[in-house]
Formats: sequence, structure tokens, C-alpha cells
Amino acid sequence: MVLIPGSKNEYFEERDKLIGMDRALRRDISYIQSRSVLEKEGDEILRRIRAEEAESIWKEDHLDVPHPFPGMEFLTGKKVIEKTRIFKIISQMPKGALLHVHMPAVVEPRTLLGLALKERSMYVCVPTRLTPTNLSSTLPIFLPLPVDSRPSIGTSISSSDYISNTWVHIAKARETFDRALGGPKGFDDWVVGALTINAREAYKTHNTVTKIWKKFKSTFSVAVGLSSASSVLHEYFRAFFVASINDGISYVELRIDPVFAKGILGEDGKRYLTQREVVFMFGESIREVKQELKKEGCEDKFLGARLIYCSVKKVAPKDLYVAVEDSILTWPIPGYDLVGQEDALRPIIDYLEPLLYFRKRQAEEQVEIPFLFHAGETLGDGTAVEDNIYDAILLGTKRIGHGFSLVKHPKLLQICRERKILLEVCPISNEVLRLTSSMPMHPLPCILNNGVPVALSCDDPSVFGNFGVTYDFYQVLVASEINGLTTLGTLARDSIEFSMMPLEEKTEALRIWEVKWNVFLQQIVNLYGLLATKH
Amino acid sequence: MVLIPGSKNEYFEERDKLIGMDRALRRDISYIQSRSVLEKEGDEILRRIRAEEAESIWKEDHLDVPHPFPGMEFLTGKKVIEKTRIFKIISQMPKGALLHVHMPAVVEPRTLLGLALKERSMYVCVPTRLTPTNLSSTLPIFLPLPVDSRPSIGTSISSSDYISNTWVHIAKARETFDRALGGPKGFDDWVVGALTINAREAYKTHNTVTKIWKKFKSTFSVAVGLSSASSVLHEYFRAFFVASINDGISYVELRIDPVFAKGILGEDGKRYLTQREVVFMFGESIREVKQELKKEGCEDKFLGARLIYCSVKKVAPKDLYVAVEDSILTWPIPGYDLVGQEDALRPIIDYLEPLLYFRKRQAEEQVEIPFLFHAGETLGDGTAVEDNIYDAILLGTKRIGHGFSLVKHPKLLQICRERKILLEVCPISNEVLRLTSSMPMHPLPCILNNGVPVALSCDDPSVFGNFGVTYDFYQVLVASEINGLTTLGTLARDSIEFSMMPLEEKTEALRIWEVKWNVFLQQIVNLYGLLATKH
Repeated sequence: MVLIPGSKNEYFEERDKLIGMDRALRRDISYIQSRSVLEKEGDEILRRIRAEEAESIWKEDHLDVPHPFPGMEFLTGKKVIEKTRIFKIISQMPKGALLHVHMPAVVEPRTLLGLALKERSMYVCVPTRLTPTNLSSTLPIFLPLPVDSRPSIGTSISSSDYISNTWVHIAKARETFDRALGGPKGFDDWVVGALTINAREAYKTHNTVTKIWKKFKSTFSVAVGLSSASSVLHEYFRAFFVASINDGISYVELRIDPVFAKGILGEDGKRYLTQREVVFMFGESIREVKQELKKEGCEDKFLGARLIYCSVKKVAPKDLYVAVEDSILTWPIPGYDLVGQEDALRPIIDYLEPLLYFRKRQAEEQVEIPFLFHAGETLGDGTAVEDNIYDAILLGTKRIGHGFSLVKHPKLLQICRERKILLEVCPISNEVLRLTSSMPMHPLPCILNNGVPVALSCDDPSVFGNFGVTYDFYQVLVASEINGLTTLGTLARDSIEFSMMPLEEKTEALRIWEVKWNVFLQQIVNLYGLLATKH
Repeated sequence: MVLIPGSKNEYFEERDKLIGMDRALRRDISYIQSRSVLEKEGDEILRRIRAEEAESIWKEDHLDVPHPFPGMEFLTGKKVIEKTRIFKIISQMPKGALLHVHMPAVVEPRTLLGLALKERSMYVCVPTRLTPTNLSSTLPIFLPLPVDSRPSIGTSISSSDYISNTWVHIAKARETFDRALGGPKGFDDWVVGALTINAREAYKTHNTVTKIWKKFKSTFSVAVGLSSASSVLHEYFRAFFVASINDGISYVELRIDPVFAKGILGEDGKRYLTQREVVFMFGESIREVKQELKKEGCEDKFLGARLIYCSVKKVAPKDLYVAVEDSILTWPIPGYDLVGQEDALRPIIDYLEPLLYFRKRQAEEQVEIPFLFHAGETLGDGTAVEDNIYDAILLGTKRIGHGFSLVKHPKLLQICRERKILLEVCPISNEVLRLTSSMPMHPLPCILNNGVPVALSCDDPSVFGNFGVTYDFYQVLVASEINGLTTLGTLARDSIEFSMMPLEEKTEALRIWEVKWNVFLQQIVNLYGLLATKH
């Protein structure tokens, strides 16, 4: 029989000890123990407001939100989230680095559409002419056409004389979009609908992992077409950086498939860019944004960005050797990943030979391209693809993309904690893609309590609508009473710490972040502190 | 940098080692290592059929089942589950003990209604006369009335001259139920609807923990009334035992609130039973069922049942002293529990003083009444009620009811494993009550991989429709490819091992179970083995 403490005092002592032991592995504990008075005060304020809003805003009735609660389905609750003071506070927070986002799913759909509409080479076609009945089920096919492939004339894609699969310039297609379909505004809505997942799709018509991934993949086919023109892409990168900076993100690592990079039509409308040219353009965009910030005297808002190469796990294992050589050729790149819908594609183990060869080639060429593998983005238990999480670790991955299923694996949790393998956790992505139904069901608390390093990210914000990382931080904060301001700070700090920046750059990034963090804490206290609310 | 094995062979060796370490804590591992050839064959058969049905039945279209998948929402998928061979196989399995079920939510609603209809004392009233518009939102209020309170006349509860809140005999209310409401059949459906949660409620109108608990609690108010007559209750116990036995369950521990036990009207229609009389009646029902089985020569199908006392966590802490003394007076009872909706009621810590006093009194009286606390049946993280899981363990609980949130707590997982605190896991209950959206999202794999002992149970089958424990075993088996036949066997064995049977009885129960298990294995091989399918 277990001895139980006899007196209340003893009991509470034992209780505090047990809770302490249970949380001892958490990465925010050391910060909590050493935090400033200012941070402690900020934390108390945040907790107080969270508790108030849980009782007020999250229990009120809201139009079209049948079951509001903190951490609820994002696509339904987004507008409620935006009303909260907690959201306003977090949006001001310095977030550190954004480590897990995919091309081309990072810019507001209407911004992308706006850029594409101005692009001479951008054309659209549909498999059959659009009508009110087939509109919502028909995807636009966008493509920048080389000069000599562009049709001279073209009718409306919604007119009765439209010939299936013929190209029409995007601007013309928009202007001539049938009134019965909403005219030009209808065109925009149709394209935006094809680029995003809405609440009805996520929570009703496509409410399983398998079904929602069908819709998810279709958004990529549309976005790839729209962004595959050189000048669109250049502006796209810039728009992404600017939006990230405005959200308090100071550094970005963006996953890109070299296959995408090889399909960008140049400005002359004749030649496709080389991979090197795309990388150069990416660098140009960074320099431009930095210059603009410098002019405004706030250059420390943005420290840069890097491209992580990745292959989709549908390629045949023998074809991965091309990606391997490509990656080595374009080195320095900060990492390599294998991506795509885990449940439907090949497991990592299928690529064992080319990946071991990759390691060998890196050693020969004396370059280091760390693996940053997606793994465990599945509800499967013990399936071939769920075993990706073993292989990612065995192959020495430095970080794990998602790692949603990691919590099932006691040994792997220990390894990730001890070897400091960071999890790039994308809460809203996981929820919209139906791995979890809401944040309170998400396994993040388990990951945090096991002391595995975590950085939050938004994965594919143009599809989910969670631009920046404020929304994801929000969902994490409100779904747990253990998480507080210091937890958010720890997540931000770790996103820098575990980025692929070189050491010197990283040290500088951390220094700048600390300064911004203290300004942020002071703002919270000034705006929401007890004295402040008395006025 | 982590060393990665160079050759494929080395790699696969390392891989097997890692997977082995990751699963080393599982309680089925030792059984897998030592299992018979027969069990191995049975396991392979089960895995083969599961894989086949995942591709066939779970990918077919079924009427009113928009998104079929293995482990899907139970109330939607139940009919599909029942079509499978896996279900047929599991229904034949010897399940061991049923450790987590609540009075009065364990008998088919139509059976209970049938018993109540024959009961002279059973009356019904409604707050306003029933009409087609208020029918679905009006709950019947049932109560056995003492002889001198029974009205001599009575109209229909659906007629225009019905006076609000006046009692009508249940059989008369049924006979005179308005045709517009479906007549007598409509009455039955109305009562059954009030006793159960349906798919629409769980997954649409009440799709949050808070909302579905409202419906859940209302089913209890109806069931309590219907079962509070002595002769109904006697038959109720018997019906429960018989249904359990038919499902392969050989022993039961049934949670009962002494407050319920004190409200049972005796057969004379004058006196209410004492708690001791209810306990005696429970014993009578056991003896009767055992006698019947003995006549049929299969007495080893049922080894008995026990009542676990429990108080609802809405009682004032000072009133818990009554329950404490009650429990000591009616000893031997196998355990004591605190129950109810954790998110809405008091945390265990509020009852610290009476519970410490309970311990003291047990020592004084030299009786042992182990705590078998509900804890962690919540999505909260670090909330006052989520801390119940700390207090349950600190107070020396022998088992934990649900323990859904345990996976978040690395230290508590270790304690439960080392001290052998069993989790009474109720997968379907958790899903219908919206702690999880489906079995693939349920934290059970994490619990199993951490080596915490688990027994499966059905919690409140009359509300969820998961009678016996076949459905719950089914959901667990199909949602994980790690779980196999030996896992199911381990769960069944542990349900006996961690029951509150005295040692001698337990040893006998395990012996009988082993015999039945081998018969079961032989049946699988005979019916579904390779040779069998050739015919």
C-alpha cells in the first residue's frame, strides 16, 4: 500500500513536489525560475486576461459560431480570436524564427492573385466552360505561357463558345467572367476558394485526414501555376517577408521543391529560370526588404531567410539521386526534407539507399546539409508511414516537421529531448488537416512536458488563413493553463536557437530578440497592468 | 553530429533495436515473446482480416455514413462495425472483468422500459402536455410512487386536458400516447431518445464536452426514475449480468451512488429499501444467475460482481463524512470513488479532509476500502480539475477511472507503471463525450507504450449503445497496427488481475480465463485459418 501523507500540510508539500517533478523536464522551467520581475508581472497579466476572456468572449454567442471555446476549430473561431485582447497582445510579440512553411503557400491569396493579374504571361484554362452549377467544383488551371505559346485571341472561360482547355489571359478571364457567376468579383472569389480551405470543407464535407488532403493538394496545384512567373515570384517572396516581419518574425526558413524552382518562366517570356537564378532572386528579395527596413531605421526587424530543399515522397527512390546532386550543387542550403501526405505516399525507408548515399556525398564534398524531415504527421499507429518517425531519427534529422505522433513513443521522446531534436509544431495546420479536432485535443502539452524543444509554425498559411504565427501562438496559449508568457518566450527563443543560422548570426538574433522581448514585456505592463486599468 | 549506420544491414539492425526499445515497456511484450504457436497463428489471422476489412468494408459507401474509416465515430459507424468479421471474432472473445460501469446506465433502454411498464408503482409526468413541437425537447419524469400517493385517475400526458406535472401510470401514458406523436411506439421512442445519446447530438448539436454532458446527465435523471422500484431493479441487475455474460465478461464491478440506493421503493409500495437491502438484492441477483448457469452446466461463465460506492463531486465536502461512514458500515465493499463531470464539479482536492479522515477511519476499523478514483476525464491542461490526476495518485488510488489526460504527465506515467495503477479506459465513452473525435486520435497507444496497465470498459452502455465490451475492444484493435490479438488478451487478463476480487477468487478467474482463451484461439484458427478459408 502507498503511504499517504497524514496531515494537510504534509499533503500539500508532497503535492507540490509531485507537480514539480512532473514538469521538471519542461524547457520553460529554467526561464520561469530566473525570469525578471517584469516578465513575471507580464505573465500574471496575460493569465488574468486569458481567464477573463475564457469566461466572457469564449462563452458569448457569436454569429455562425455554434460552440465557442478557447482553442476551438480555427476556421470557425478565427473572427472570435481576432476580437480578443490576448490576440492583440500576442500579435505584438517578437516571435523569433519561422521554421516550417512551404512554397508557394505563404502569401495572402488575394495578394498573389493581384500579382498574377498584372503578369503578361499568366493564362488560365478550365476543363469545361464555367456555369453556376460546376463553378464550385471546377479548379482553375493557371500557367505562365512562353511568348510563342500565347494565343492571340480568347473568349471568356464562362461563355458558351469557350473551347475546353484553351488558354485565356488571366485579366481577360476576370473581366469577362459571367455576371451570373458574380462578374470579376466572382472570379476573385472562385480563385480564392480554390486556394484555401474553408470551415465547411474542413469540418463538414471533407472532415477526415484523407478527404481534406484532397482539397489541400488541389490548392497547391492552383498556387503553383499562379506563382510560376519570375516577376510574380519575386514580389511573392517580398510580400511574404513583409507580412512575416509585421507579425514579429525576424527570420524565415522556407521549404521549396527544386521541381517548382525549375518551372519559373523568366521575364523575357522565353527562358525558364535555373535553380541558381531562383535562389539568387530569393536573395535579392531579402536584400531589398532589408534595405527598405534600413531606410526606416529598423533593420534589426529582419535578419534574413533561407531555402530548405525538399522532395515529395512520390518520386521513385532512384530519382532521388538527382535531388541529392542538386542539393550538393546549390550548397550552402540549410537543410533537406522529404515532404507530402505521409498517409498516402512512400515511407522514408523506401529512400534509404539514396539517403545513405546523400550522407556519403556530403562527406566527400565536405558540405553539411542536415536532414530536417517531416515525420509523424499521421494518425496511424504502427503503420509503415508512422515508422517515418523512427527513420527520421535514425538518419540523424536535426528537427522534425510536425512529429504529431511522437507522443506515442516514450523512447523517441527521450531521444529528442536528450539529442535536442526540435519539433516544428504547426497546431492550426494539424487541426485543419484533421489530425486533431481542436487545440485542447492536440498532443503539444505532452511534448512540452517531456522537454522536447518546440518551435511553432504556420505550415501553409495561404491555405489555412493563419498568416504569421500569432494565430498558432494564440491557440497554444489559450488551450493550456500551464503555458504562460514565459512558455511563449521559450518557444520563440528555441525557434532561433534551433534555426539553421550560422552560430554568429544566431547569437546576434538572440541578442536582438532579448531586447525586443523586454520592450514587449514593458508594453504589456504599461497597457494592461493594474495601474493602467485603473485609468 | 549523430552517427548514422553506413550500410543497409547495419541500419536495419539499429532500426529493429530502436523500435524494440520504444515498445519495451508495453505489457503485451512478455506475452508476445512467450505465446503459443496457436496464439501466433490467431494473431496473424486477425491482422490479415483487419487489413482486408480496412480496404473493403471501411472504404465502401454505407448508407448515412459519409466518412467511414476504422475507429470512426462510434454512433455513426456502429452498424458498419457490426458487419465486420473482426467484430464477430471479438464478440466471442473471453473478456475477463468489466471494471468501469455506472448504475443505472448498463441495461438496454428498451429492456428497462419493458420492466418499468410492468411495474405497478411506476408513474410519469411532464412539465407541460406533449405536442409534436415540444416532444423532442421534453424529458419524461419517471418515479415509483408510494401506494398512498398514486392518483386514482389520470389522463393522457399528450391530451389537451393534461395538467402540468401530474402523475399518470406509465402503462396508461403509453397506451394513450397521441397518435400524432406516434402512439405507443412513439412513447417508446421518446423514452429511448431520452435515455440515449444519438449521432446527431454527439457530432452536431452537442459537439463539445460541455454540451454533450448536458444531454448525458439528462439521460441519468430518466434512468434513475425508471429503475428506482425494487422489482425493476432486481430484474435490472439480472439483465445486466446476463448481457455481460453473453458478451464474454465473467466478472463485474459496478459503480453505485448510495444516494441512488437509498431511493428504491420496496415491493409493498410503502417503504424504501435500506442500502443493505439493495446490496442484498444485488447479491440475490448474482446467486440467481449463477444458479441458472449451473443448471446449464456452464457456471464458470460468471464468477460474480461487486458494488463500488461513489459520491458525485457536487456534494459539499462536509457532507462527504456521511458517505465515509456509510461505506465503512456496509464493508466489505471493493472500493470508493468520486464521480461526475470533472470539468463542471469540484476538484478532488476540495475533499482532502474527509478523504484523509476516511483513511484514518479505515485504519481504526481495520477495513480496507481502496480508492478507485475517476481522474483526468478532461481536455483541460493544468486546470484545477485536471490536477485530480495528481490527487488521485497522491491519495493512493489503486486504479484510475479514465485517466484520459495522464499522457501529458511523464512523471505520473512512470508512477502508474511502477506502482501498477491500472487505467480503466473507456474509449467509446471518451469519444461520444467528445474528449476525442475518433479512436485514431485517442491517447490509448501512448498509455500502452508507456507500460501502464489498462482494462477496457464501456462506462455507460445504455447511453452510448456499446453494450458489453466488444465494441470498445473493436475500436481499440482497428485503430492501431501495433495492437494485435495478444494485446487484447493482455487487456482482458489485466482486467482480472486488477479487479478487486480477493486473491483466491482472482487466481481461479485467471485459470478459467486461460482455458477459455485457448478455446477462443482454436475457434479463430478453425474458422478463419488458411485451411479453413480454402474450403
